[in-house]
Formats: sequence, C-alpha cells, structure tokens
Amino acid sequence: MPKLEPYSRKLNYSYQLGVFPALMLLEAQPDCASRLLLDPRGLGNEGVEKLRERCAQLGVREEMAERVLRRESKKDNCFAGLVFDKYDCALDKSAVHAVLCQISDNGNAGTAMRSLLGFGIRDVALVRPCVDAFDPHVLRASMGAFFKLRVKTYDDFDDYRAEFPDRALYPFMLDGAKALNEVAAAARPPFSLIFGNEQTGLPPRFAALGQSVLIPQSPEIDSLNLAVAVSVGAYAFMVR
Amino acid sequence: MPKLEPYSRKLNYSYQLGVFPALMLLEAQPDCASRLLLDPRGLGNEGVEKLRERCAQLGVREEMAERVLRRESKKDNCFAGLVFDKYDCALDKSAVHAVLCQISDNGNAGTAMRSLLGFGIRDVALVRPCVDAFDPHVLRASMGAFFKLRVKTYDDFDDYRAEFPDRALYPFMLDGAKALNEVAAAARPPFSLIFGNEQTGLPPRFAALGQSVLIPQSPEIDSLNLAVAVSVGAYAFMVR
Repeated sequence: MPKLEPYSRKLNYSYQLGVFPALMLLEAQPDCASRLLLDPRGLGNEGVEKLRERCAQLGVREEMAERVLRRESKKDNCFAGLVFDKYDCALDKSAVHAVLCQISDNGNAGTAMRSLLGFGIRDVALVRPCVDAFDPHVLRASMGAFFKLRVKTYDDFDDYRAEFPDRALYPFMLDGAKALNEVAAAARPPFSLIFGNEQTGLPPRFAALGQSVLIPQSPEIDSLNLAVAVSVGAYAFMVR
Repeated sequence: MPKLEPYSRKLNYSYQLGVFPALMLLEAQPDCASRLLLDPRGLGNEGVEKLRERCAQLGVREEMAERVLRRESKKDNCFAGLVFDKYDCALDKSAVHAVLCQISDNGNAGTAMRSLLGFGIRDVALVRPCVDAFDPHVLRASMGAFFKLRVKTYDDFDDYRAEFPDRALYPFMLDGAKALNEVAAAARPPFSLIFGNEQTGLPPRFAALGQSVLIPQSPEIDSLNLAVAVSVGAYAFMVR
C-alpha cells in the first residue's frame, strides 16, 4: 500500500476521522472508501467493531495506523478513520441551495453543513477563495453530514449564477432590506440562501441580485457566528 | 505588580484577549478591568490605540506582556488583552433566561452567549458540571457578549429552579413533545429555554418540568451542534 501523506489540498484522497462520521461515509458513499485506519486501543469498542464489520463486507482493507490517526486528527484519542477518494458532485437544479462565499474557517464550514442537512438543504455551493471542502477538519466538524450533501466549489459567484440562472436569490446581509422572519415564510423553491465570509460578509453588490435578508439582532453584537447565521437562516426558510 | 499566573478556575482574575471584546469589557464592566496587556507589534494599530486611550481615561495601567498574551491565547497574533477581576451576577427575575446544563465545550458556551445577546436574552444560567464561564476561551468565543450578559453558575438545576419557581420552562429535547415553530410564537415571558449537554442532551425527567421542545430536524443527522441549537431556539422564541 502506498504511504499515507499528511493531508493537503493537492492529494486525491482525504481522511474521515472518528467512528460515527466514518460510518456515515460508508452508508452514503461506500464506493469511495479505500482503507480503514485503526488504533489498537480502540479494538473491542462497539463503534469500531461495527466499522470493521462494514469494511470487511465492502472489501475495504484495515490496518493499524495510530501514527497517521494522531497526525491527521491532532488528537491522541482518535481510534479509527477512513481513507477515501475525493469525488465530484453536481448540485440539484430543482432543489434549495446554500451558497457559502469565501468561508475561511474549517469548523464553521463543517458545522454549517451539519445544520444544512439537518434542516433539509442538501445542495451546498462554496465560492473561492474558501476552505477546502475535503479538509479533514471540515469533515470532522460536519459529523458525517458532508457525505450526504452535494457540495461543489466554484471559482467565483458568477460561475455559480451562470449554472443556475433561474432561481430566487436571498443574500444574507447585516443591512438586508427585509427581516428573515418576514421573508422566509413566503419563499418558494427553488431558491438559494447566500452567505458571506466571517470577517466582511457579502459585498454590497449582492443586495441587487435578489431579496437581501437581515437576521434581526441586537446592535450590541457585531454579528452572529457564521455557522449560526447559516443555521438560523436554514431553519427559518425550511421549517414552517 | 503581582506576577500573572496561567489561567485557572481558582484565580480571582481572568484574561479577555483580543481588541474588540476588550473594548466591550471596558464599555460594559469598566470597574473590573485591572491591567492592559500589550504586544509591541500591535502599537499603532487603530483598535489597540483606542483601547490604550480608554484604559488611560479609566486609570487602567498598561504593560508590555507579549509572553502572557501568547501563553493565554495559545496564538502568536494576539496583540492586546485585559486582566480583569471576576465578579458575581444575579439573574433578572422578570426576564427571559437561557439555562445551559452541563455544557462542556468552551467554544460552544461562548458562541451560544454571543447569539443569546444577539437575540435579546441577557440572563444565562449555567448548571454544573460545566465550563468555567470566566475561562479565556469562553470569553474569546463570546466576542465580548459575556460582559453584557448576567451569567450565574448553579450547582444543580434544582437550585436554579428554587430561585425562579414561577416561570414557564421549555426544555429542548430530541424527543420534545412539540415542535419549536409551533411552541415559540405563543410563549409569554418570563420563561426559560433549557438545553442539555453536547453528548447526551437533557435527562428524560426534564420532559415533565415544562413544555418540552423539539427542533424539527432530519433523522439523517445525529443532532445539531449545541451552540446552533441554542441560537435557533433563541431566534424562534425572541424574533417574531
């Protein structure tokens, strides 16, 4: 077997660390799993044994690789993980999308994905420059949600818009023209919820692209955490 | 001046790292600030100079302390921070409360506080065993919101309930009896939104204490991130 490299954007494989999200990978994308990494200390653990059993059924070979698990997780208590081949997705034209523009924090990206799946949005566009969707820290924070989503990364927002010209756009902005609670109930799919980056939000030009949305919030805070804003937006639009 | 110790729960002071939240500390709790810590690399920076000016007005002495800033932030780019004395708060009997039971992650606690202030909930009860509300990592994640909240830590939930016997309780549970979007609009203050810990949520006995609430979510996710759940709950109850 080839030596496993420290994760980088350039590799054609990545690592899903942790038992629960690794099981979700096998459930949702079984064909991309290539190697099961184990720490001997985890053997006998119920989740680890379930993972071994599923891998045996799928023909995914297992190996003791505690050093790789420690290196990739940056933790000392990660007992299992999967190596898997990166894959491409296309977004569903008729579905609701979330568009995350220039998101820079791996934890925010993963947590947002977890919430989006939770509230029924399965199509996620990322706009560069942004996190690497396959970064193990994004995957870890998504708690396996990543594998049940269709995630596609675009060079810029115009590329996304050219691919999906016929849908309502809802850019979330701190000076949005309408309040979330007024807008959300009336939205009809397909539509796209659009969020800007952690530091600066969306540029002003987005206000002209659709119905800009403000999450009503006290002036005492500077802004909401980005993953929180995505989650509250998805809740309001999707749960009625 | 006494030597500044590595932060621990036992100290009677703590550290607010970062320019923006340190300014919020000075705005909301000016009397508790005792020392301004600076890194020479930050001098001249607009925010740092504003902080120095406010501290000079308040008689808070400044000192170069790059080693302490690095140690407490665990980062190499933290250019300013405040040492401040810990203080006690009492919750407002007539206000809406958030009760976070046995929350264990510093980042979740701080992010939840930021959202609670954002959605107008200023009174937060923490129930032990839980994070230390004054931990610099909680404070950092709260982005200064902590200083505008009233945060009190209780030994157990019954102590909290004995202090505030006359209010509606809404425990958030994965098997909650009513959906958030059905319950929230009808709630009349004062009420308390109650959340359990990251791994296990609230114990089943909480269902009998009030109107249990479910955040409608896909069975494809295990649960929402705790800070996300608190934020979505606060949004739904407070923004109408």
